Amino acid sequence: MKFCMIGSRGHYPYVFQSIGKVSGISLEGVSGGCEDDPAPLVKAAGKAGFSPKVYDDWKAMLAEVSPDLVAVDGPFDKHAEMAAWALERGIHVFCEKPIALTLEDLEKVIAAQKRSGARIISMVGLRYQADFQYALQLVRAGAVGKVKMVRAQKSYRLGSRPEFFRHRATYGGTIPWVGSHAVDWILAFSGSAFHEVYATQTSEDNFNHGELEVACQCLFTMKNGVQAMASIDYLRPSAAPTHGDDRVRVAGTEGVLEVMDGKVVLIDKEGKRELSVPPAERDLFSDFANSLTGKQECLVPEWETFELTRACLLARESADTGKIIRF
Amino acid sequence: MKFCMIGSRGHYPYVFQSIGKVSGISLEGVSGGCEDDPAPLVKAAGKAGFSPKVYDDWKAMLAEVSPDLVAVDGPFDKHAEMAAWALERGIHVFCEKPIALTLEDLEKVIAAQKRSGARIISMVGLRYQADFQYALQLVRAGAVGKVKMVRAQKSYRLGSRPEFFRHRATYGGTIPWVGSHAVDWILAFSGSAFHEVYATQTSEDNFNHGELEVACQCLFTMKNGVQAMASIDYLRPSAAPTHGDDRVRVAGTEGVLEVMDGKVVLIDKEGKRELSVPPAERDLFSDFANSLTGKQECLVPEWETFELTRACLLARESADTGKIIRF
Repeated sequence: MKFCMIGSRGHYPYVFQSIGKVSGISLEGVSGGCEDDPAPLVKAAGKAGFSPKVYDDWKAMLAEVSPDLVAVDGPFDKHAEMAAWALERGIHVFCEKPIALTLEDLEKVIAAQKRSGARIISMVGLRYQADFQYALQLVRAGAVGKVKMVRAQKSYRLGSRPEFFRHRATYGGTIPWVGSHAVDWILAFSGSAFHEVYATQTSEDNFNHGELEVACQCLFTMKNGVQAMASIDYLRPSAAPTHGDDRVRVAGTEGVLEVMDGKVVLIDKEGKRELSVPPAERDLFSDFANSLTGKQECLVPEWETFELTRACLLARESADTGKIIRF
Repeated sequence: MKFCMIGSRGHYPYVFQSIGKVSGISLEGVSGGCEDDPAPLVKAAGKAGFSPKVYDDWKAMLAEVSPDLVAVDGPFDKHAEMAAWALERGIHVFCEKPIALTLEDLEKVIAAQKRSGARIISMVGLRYQADFQYALQLVRAGAVGKVKMVRAQKSYRLGSRPEFFRHRATYGGTIPWVGSHAVDWILAFSGSAFHEVYATQTSEDNFNHGELEVACQCLFTMKNGVQAMASIDYLRPSAAPTHGDDRVRVAGTEGVLEVMDGKVVLIDKEGKRELSVPPAERDLFSDFANSLTGKQECLVPEWETFELTRACLLARESADTGKIIRF
């Protein structure tokens, strides 16, 4: 499996977390992706035992190497262009989320995928994190009965973000960027596509970060009737013990399950208890890469990658316009 | 201070928690309030050292005793009639929440209060609970800087509820009944009146409880820009360690404070730590009763009692109609 990588703005390290589990993969080319230094990619590749050729021009790289798979992690506003270009040529895409910053760009990616049949997944690594992955197994096995509510939280330290975070055009907004994890959990734990969304957001008091929204909240109803909400903020103090405070609460007809502080706590007819979290069964990158050769099914099907992206963009549109949006 | 009590459907025990702190108060009459047995009131009064006269007819009681203060805890759909009747006659009212089940009834109570100047508070006992009361003191003292987000949770065991819970006309709905606590926290912690609300609710899978909504969610924006959400459900398993899982999370420009499991946890520039919760400084009933004689200011001003009730009813209307509602 010939593999290339473009850009290092976001979560490309997921590749190296599990590339060792993809037999026969060969990282043949890396590119900074328009604007960035390829050095981090070269260094990470070296540590993983690869010596890829370095390209200035990512299109030239893909044309020359003709890889089976490419990781897209360039400028946020270039994800869609890069992903669509690769998909059109039958190259599978491991893409930073959100895969598009506009609905128009999303449609281009979907159209390219439909035409070629090549596969795409976005870097929803937190669905694969051991605690969330185990919680999802439990919920799918009926631990809380019929799911009625899902509540997700993303709370991050802001720190001082690079300039491109401060402009909607290059950042895309906090609901798509930070919130995509929360929206992905909602999609996974509810077991349903989205029906409707209403959201709010604010850029006030954002510590001089331009247009960046510092706090957002989304309220969803799902096609299967599940009610869901996401709370998203950059208000986590720098002295907090970890970078992010990631949480999910799933309430159903037979129990309530929560992921918080890396722990999974279940309340059901046996009472309340913390469950021991086993090591993650699957890793994001290897799960996707190995699914391409038919070795296993990927935890995230294609339609969920598109549905997640659409949900983030429509939630942002709701917050931008103050309107309820039906999917 | 002559005092009467009507009904025992809800939180009348708040009276007896702190009646001993109201000097000179005398419980002179109790009434079952239209439909209920007065025995629980008589028994509780006796334990507190009072021997009130028992009346079948609450209006006759108020006319005969002419009390300074009455506790209203009759049928939910009679709160507004009883409160307005008393207020019109200059009797202060300690009223079960919500004080009205319709906006029309709320307007009648407000009009009666405005005409006589008598005072009213609703039984928002959870604002006075030691953990929440302390948290509110901290937030008002600036513990999290400028408040940006408030998230409240009410999760109750359902059990098997009396027949009147199963009909909107006599119950009023889960957002006003259970959610009023969450909405009251939002009002208090945000330090602002409400600007807009969108809410959802469902009666499906409610364990044969008729029209009772088993799960609800509300998303508010406040006039001062704070974003707030409430999650309200009856999905807490019967084997859970406590009846309710009450929570508030307040995120601001300088910290995040949470109340959960009776604990208060603050993250700020000093890091994350649990704060020792002191005993409650004030109790709901005595705070209100003593404020009537000018001994102290009540923690809940009149406008908040009305604003809380209106917010609950408009959130319910949003969930009923699927529309965003501006206050």
